[in-house]
Amino acid sequence: MLSPSVGVIGAGAWGTALAQVAAKSQVAAGSSVWLWCRDPMAAAEINRSRTNDARLPDVRLVPNVVATSEPSALAACDIVLIATPAQTVRQVLKQFSSVLRPGARVVITAKGLERGTAAFMTGILADECPSCEPLVLSGPSFADDVVRGLPTAVTLAAQSMEIAHPVAAALSIPTFRLYVSDDLAGVQVGGAVKNVLAIACGIVAGRKLGESARAALIARSFAELNRIGRVLGARGETLGGLSGLGDLVLSCSSAQSRNFRLGQAMGEGRSPGEILGSQRGTSEGAYTASVVDTIATKHAIEVPIISAVRAILDGDCTIDEAIEQLLQRPLKSEI
Amino acid sequence: MLSPSVGVIGAGAWGTALAQVAAKSQVAAGSSVWLWCRDPMAAAEINRSRTNDARLPDVRLVPNVVATSEPSALAACDIVLIATPAQTVRQVLKQFSSVLRPGARVVITAKGLERGTAAFMTGILADECPSCEPLVLSGPSFADDVVRGLPTAVTLAAQSMEIAHPVAAALSIPTFRLYVSDDLAGVQVGGAVKNVLAIACGIVAGRKLGESARAALIARSFAELNRIGRVLGARGETLGGLSGLGDLVLSCSSAQSRNFRLGQAMGEGRSPGEILGSQRGTSEGAYTASVVDTIATKHAIEVPIISAVRAILDGDCTIDEAIEQLLQRPLKSEI
Repeated sequence: MLSPSVGVIGAGAWGTALAQVAAKSQVAAGSSVWLWCRDPMAAAEINRSRTNDARLPDVRLVPNVVATSEPSALAACDIVLIATPAQTVRQVLKQFSSVLRPGARVVITAKGLERGTAAFMTGILADECPSCEPLVLSGPSFADDVVRGLPTAVTLAAQSMEIAHPVAAALSIPTFRLYVSDDLAGVQVGGAVKNVLAIACGIVAGRKLGESARAALIARSFAELNRIGRVLGARGETLGGLSGLGDLVLSCSSAQSRNFRLGQAMGEGRSPGEILGSQRGTSEGAYTASVVDTIATKHAIEVPIISAVRAILDGDCTIDEAIEQLLQRPLKSEI
Repeated sequence: MLSPSVGVIGAGAWGTALAQVAAKSQVAAGSSVWLWCRDPMAAAEINRSRTNDARLPDVRLVPNVVATSEPSALAACDIVLIATPAQTVRQVLKQFSSVLRPGARVVITAKGLERGTAAFMTGILADECPSCEPLVLSGPSFADDVVRGLPTAVTLAAQSMEIAHPVAAALSIPTFRLYVSDDLAGVQVGGAVKNVLAIACGIVAGRKLGESARAALIARSFAELNRIGRVLGARGETLGGLSGLGDLVLSCSSAQSRNFRLGQAMGEGRSPGEILGSQRGTSEGAYTASVVDTIATKHAIEVPIISAVRAILDGDCTIDEAIEQLLQRPLKSEI
């Protein structure tokens, strides 16, 4: 695959950051990277100002990032990254299904499971664009860190290493490193479930319960991630890697994570509806919580932290009741 | 074991915090808790002021914490906690070997491996006080969080659950919860190795490499902890629990950790010798790094992060060289 032509669907902070690094990676090949956004005005403004001030301020885009609102611009792309919120991926892929060329490598970067169907993002791709090749990019990587050139490392999964390797090479730059994997399920479970757990850690931070409590919660969260992962076909080593534990730790530790911020604001006493209504961008965990909780119930797995987040979001219990319940679990063996 | 009499050896921040919670746990039984410190003046001052201002300021000790500098005061104790730095544990146990009663439950809270011998702390106990019963208490728990009554959870390991359960009950209070385990090796490996890895994360923070980089480093650190743990007889589920991953995450995330602070200051350009010479308390990881690195070499395990910390501490490479090397590892499968 010589000088692949790359497109990015979704011009939020993450999509813009991915377009920027892909464009840097493509410079030597002389290729451009398309950055597709729904709104023609926004696309024109990005091309005019060379920034995406609304979503990723203070970043000057490299010259070979070209914004467009025309789906057909991506028709020739060998690699297409999907960087829209998880719950919009089906609708976006429907829009692009007649455009993307057969065999195109579609790299999903949305983290979540579809409400209603509990489908993986790659499942949605198989439904809507069955002739495309599914890949998933996931790992601990704030858009800001990536565009500032701080060292970041993520996982790129495909159905085989042979498929993953050239795509990883086409998207890597020295400060943004893609490690390949063939565990598509594992990488997606990590990315989806960590968002729910980040809300829990945010609540603990918002309630000022201390760093020790948050660290204990992260360890217990990792155990829940593993239990859910096992029934969804994830490999243990993937869940313990960049896209699992790495991303879990990042989202559970930093107010740069929207899911953590949602939990933090809830912990400080604000209602989920009020916060979700007022924020820019999507807290994926708020949508994934009930999906994951339902999967756990179906498989008879205990996931007390995820269940508590679901219950708080749905108004079935208060934060204080949930904390009380988690703390009052009987003193027993840890495992 | 009715109203066990508890003693704590070592009146640093952690020993003092443990004496405080043990005393609260013992109040109903009407028992006191001995807090032993080497210096008779310090013991007298604690008893007079009801605080340990030098090591754990602003904490009023409960009335049944009694400081002493007489080893013989602990002769009748059923439970004795060792809260001195890891590299002093042998010398302390030598001093107490003729004092502690046979069958006493000795709960080690020091986190490290002995330099020179690479011994576990329980190995030192077996050498010096063979008639005592070994236990290990370890987990994510800053002394400050524990004494402020914030919720904390740690692991208490013994040779059997039957031994661990009553000791856990004697030391628990509602906000400081002890989960029992019979994996003595696993709990010790986690506590020892995380201190080395916390130095690495501190360096990344000191160099301002970003939260994404630190999260990736924590995930890779966890993989190294697992590799080392496996050859030292630790169980995977212990390494993924409170005393492994939980404590790793805490120490790798917070300037409240002395090991993290050591790394942070190194990352900012200060020399390890200068920092270690000027700080209060011990950065255990600085002593454990070479022990762990040697174990890895002996077993032919790759632990690039631990090896880098060892090399930086020993002056064998600069921080920038180490970072460069870690970043330049070939792009390959993550596992």
